[in-house]
Amino acid sequence: MSRVVPVSGFPEWAPEERVIERHVIETLREVFALHGFAEIETRAIEPLDRLRGDSDAAKEIYALRRVLADADDGDSGVGLHFDLTVPFARYVEEFSGRIAFPFRRYQIQKVWRGERPQEGRFREFYQADIDVVARDTLPAHLEIEVAAVVARALGRLPIPPVRIHVNDRRLVEAFYGGVGVADIPAALRSVDKLSKIGREGVAAELRGAGVSDAAIEACLDLAELSAPDASFADDVRALALRNGIPEEALAEGIASLTALVDGINAAVPGVARADLRIARGLDYYTGAVYETFLEGHEDLGSICSGGRYDSLVRVGGSTLPGVGISVGVTRLVSRILSVGLATATRGVPSAVLIAVADESSRTGSEVIAAALRARGIPCEVSPNAAKFGKQIQHADRRGIPFVWFPGESGDEVKDIRSGEQVSADAATWAPPTDDLWPRVERG
Amino acid sequence: MSRVVPVSGFPEWAPEERVIERHVIETLREVFALHGFAEIETRAIEPLDRLRGDSDAAKEIYALRRVLADADDGDSGVGLHFDLTVPFARYVEEFSGRIAFPFRRYQIQKVWRGERPQEGRFREFYQADIDVVARDTLPAHLEIEVAAVVARALGRLPIPPVRIHVNDRRLVEAFYGGVGVADIPAALRSVDKLSKIGREGVAAELRGAGVSDAAIEACLDLAELSAPDASFADDVRALALRNGIPEEALAEGIASLTALVDGINAAVPGVARADLRIARGLDYYTGAVYETFLEGHEDLGSICSGGRYDSLVRVGGSTLPGVGISVGVTRLVSRILSVGLATATRGVPSAVLIAVADESSRTGSEVIAAALRARGIPCEVSPNAAKFGKQIQHADRRGIPFVWFPGESGDEVKDIRSGEQVSADAATWAPPTDDLWPRVERG
Repeated sequence: MSRVVPVSGFPEWAPEERVIERHVIETLREVFALHGFAEIETRAIEPLDRLRGDSDAAKEIYALRRVLADADDGDSGVGLHFDLTVPFARYVEEFSGRIAFPFRRYQIQKVWRGERPQEGRFREFYQADIDVVARDTLPAHLEIEVAAVVARALGRLPIPPVRIHVNDRRLVEAFYGGVGVADIPAALRSVDKLSKIGREGVAAELRGAGVSDAAIEACLDLAELSAPDASFADDVRALALRNGIPEEALAEGIASLTALVDGINAAVPGVARADLRIARGLDYYTGAVYETFLEGHEDLGSICSGGRYDSLVRVGGSTLPGVGISVGVTRLVSRILSVGLATATRGVPSAVLIAVADESSRTGSEVIAAALRARGIPCEVSPNAAKFGKQIQHADRRGIPFVWFPGESGDEVKDIRSGEQVSADAATWAPPTDDLWPRVERG
Repeated sequence: MSRVVPVSGFPEWAPEERVIERHVIETLREVFALHGFAEIETRAIEPLDRLRGDSDAAKEIYALRRVLADADDGDSGVGLHFDLTVPFARYVEEFSGRIAFPFRRYQIQKVWRGERPQEGRFREFYQADIDVVARDTLPAHLEIEVAAVVARALGRLPIPPVRIHVNDRRLVEAFYGGVGVADIPAALRSVDKLSKIGREGVAAELRGAGVSDAAIEACLDLAELSAPDASFADDVRALALRNGIPEEALAEGIASLTALVDGINAAVPGVARADLRIARGLDYYTGAVYETFLEGHEDLGSICSGGRYDSLVRVGGSTLPGVGISVGVTRLVSRILSVGLATATRGVPSAVLIAVADESSRTGSEVIAAALRARGIPCEVSPNAAKFGKQIQHADRRGIPFVWFPGESGDEVKDIRSGEQVSADAATWAPPTDDLWPRVERG
């Protein structure tokens, strides 16, 4: 039996930390559902060839093999999903006869990636995704809506304000094409690493791919442009002019990005910023792309990313357009925990410990507990009939705020924080609302 | 890219089926929390040597290897957990400094087993576990409590009544020892297969293991005994007498099982049955063992199993006793779905579709939606400004009961099931409580 040590990249939380993670997940869930997104879950595994579809992700896959008693039966042909988008696309295909389009779904599950763990980057982590997939055309207002929904959801969490950086693949691709970049997807993947490897690093990669120095300069200059509103457009036009790109080549992309940044800011004022640096490494994006940063925690990287895709979902020979965005729940929670952005009032659900005077009266304590639970009050009966002082100590160690003392001439309940003890009836007494369940407070 | 087909043993649900699965999970969660069980989650993986600890389970493990871009880095030394007990034992060891004992936890997660899929038996499935682990001694009332808690939780689900069959390892082991069985754990594993391979099959296994014919007969006779109350004890004593086992050898076991069946039935009348057939294949059980059957669905096998263990959890050189029970959530849900024990009122969260008269007035519809959501009413704005008849059709296809029509001289809302249309104000109108969220109804 191996020694017990945490496994790097596979985080686990103490019970009071799990209260915070659950709060984050339930808050996202509620906002998503209020916006009409239905929940689905997909199996943890997909066929390896489907997972390998995107070349960039292949290195991150965990493949599965069944271990039999004495041997193993080799490659099972499946691996753990590394995101929720690939499984969702497959789910839509499989369930297309049972869902109505445009299909709005949310999905909150763990995903796995083999990459090297580091601060905010894990091998097992929760993602919370919303996507909309349409049957024929996907209206641009849905590219605005998914960003607005996550902005509202993140706004309810105990975290600093977020800024959603948006870009549009149509604009960037037209620009890259305009300066003569041949392999645009490869160039996008290089520019996506800008914050990681810097201008020089990106330039070296592009040069290696045969991109001219002038084009490299132009692409990097484009990536420098950003604005909190439509004013990015003039800068893009000026840069295009300097690089000999005809204005009409960028017209559609500029219009799309303008509508996107203005639309999100109309829905959630000040949350969106046009940022021409946002590239996203994944080949399947075709329009809006998003990355989201937490004010004062930009080192964490994007906590919420996504975009529009037009040929990821295939149903009956045709492709269905979609748009989606994914919250990095574990990345957020790990930061909330590591810098104390929030704390849980306690780690155990119980608001009340019912004391036991002696083992022969345990049934009486159970009856009191049942009465409280029937009224929605979480409680537990003392594990033993130790002296009351010991039982109070036990409640204190568990973080339980109240201790209930059954008495032949009437019960009493003690708030062990204040020491106040009052008469109480299990049919009517309730703790203050703030004490009923564990709560999450901003730290 | 592979064709899209369901993967045997990895079930997925349509949105309205997921509503039912969520209802089951949330009901269990609420009852567990009301009883003071704190939630934890553990990582999906454990070191292979820890998973292999129990010989019987080894054949069921999915091992992981990282697949790199061009090669793979071989065995990662970890595999997916096949239950939540082994990870929980490791968690207690790792977090022992941060939790108070007796530690009461619940855990609802997916687990994976490589075994052959069949009706009610999956390769990926949800389990919902509660366990209590004590620092020194584990009082017998906790063996009663965990069974009572799941009985109460299952009693709230849209399923037929359940019967918890209980036994006590101390009693069975004393009896087996008394008739001269040498390898008691192996004999228990054989008897555990009684319902699968029958008396003859078990007898053959035991004979192969060198157990005498008389002992085989005695063990199989013991497995025939069962009663809804303490009356099993007389039958056991009579059988012991016939096999020359001194009465005092079984006294402790009989007393334990009597207390267990009486205690559970006192807490939840009629739910428990003493059943000397219950063996459980796992070596680590040392006292109470449980299996649970759904009335009229006994073919499904046990939907909820567990037991007491005394040396599974190790902290600082000593072992900590515990008791736990695990609900097979996916097994239950799959049966609820396959025979229609329950249905969801709809698969989408939205109670209201806000119509859009023309795209220029979309913002007005969004404002109405925001007002409803602020009051906790789930809704969505129509994806397009088609004719109202088309928009109503869209709501109908999605299962949304109400359509809201913004109007310059006041809004109206239509119940599309009855056709009734009334004036409405987004600041005050609400759907009937039954329509607010999707609900689960007994089928």
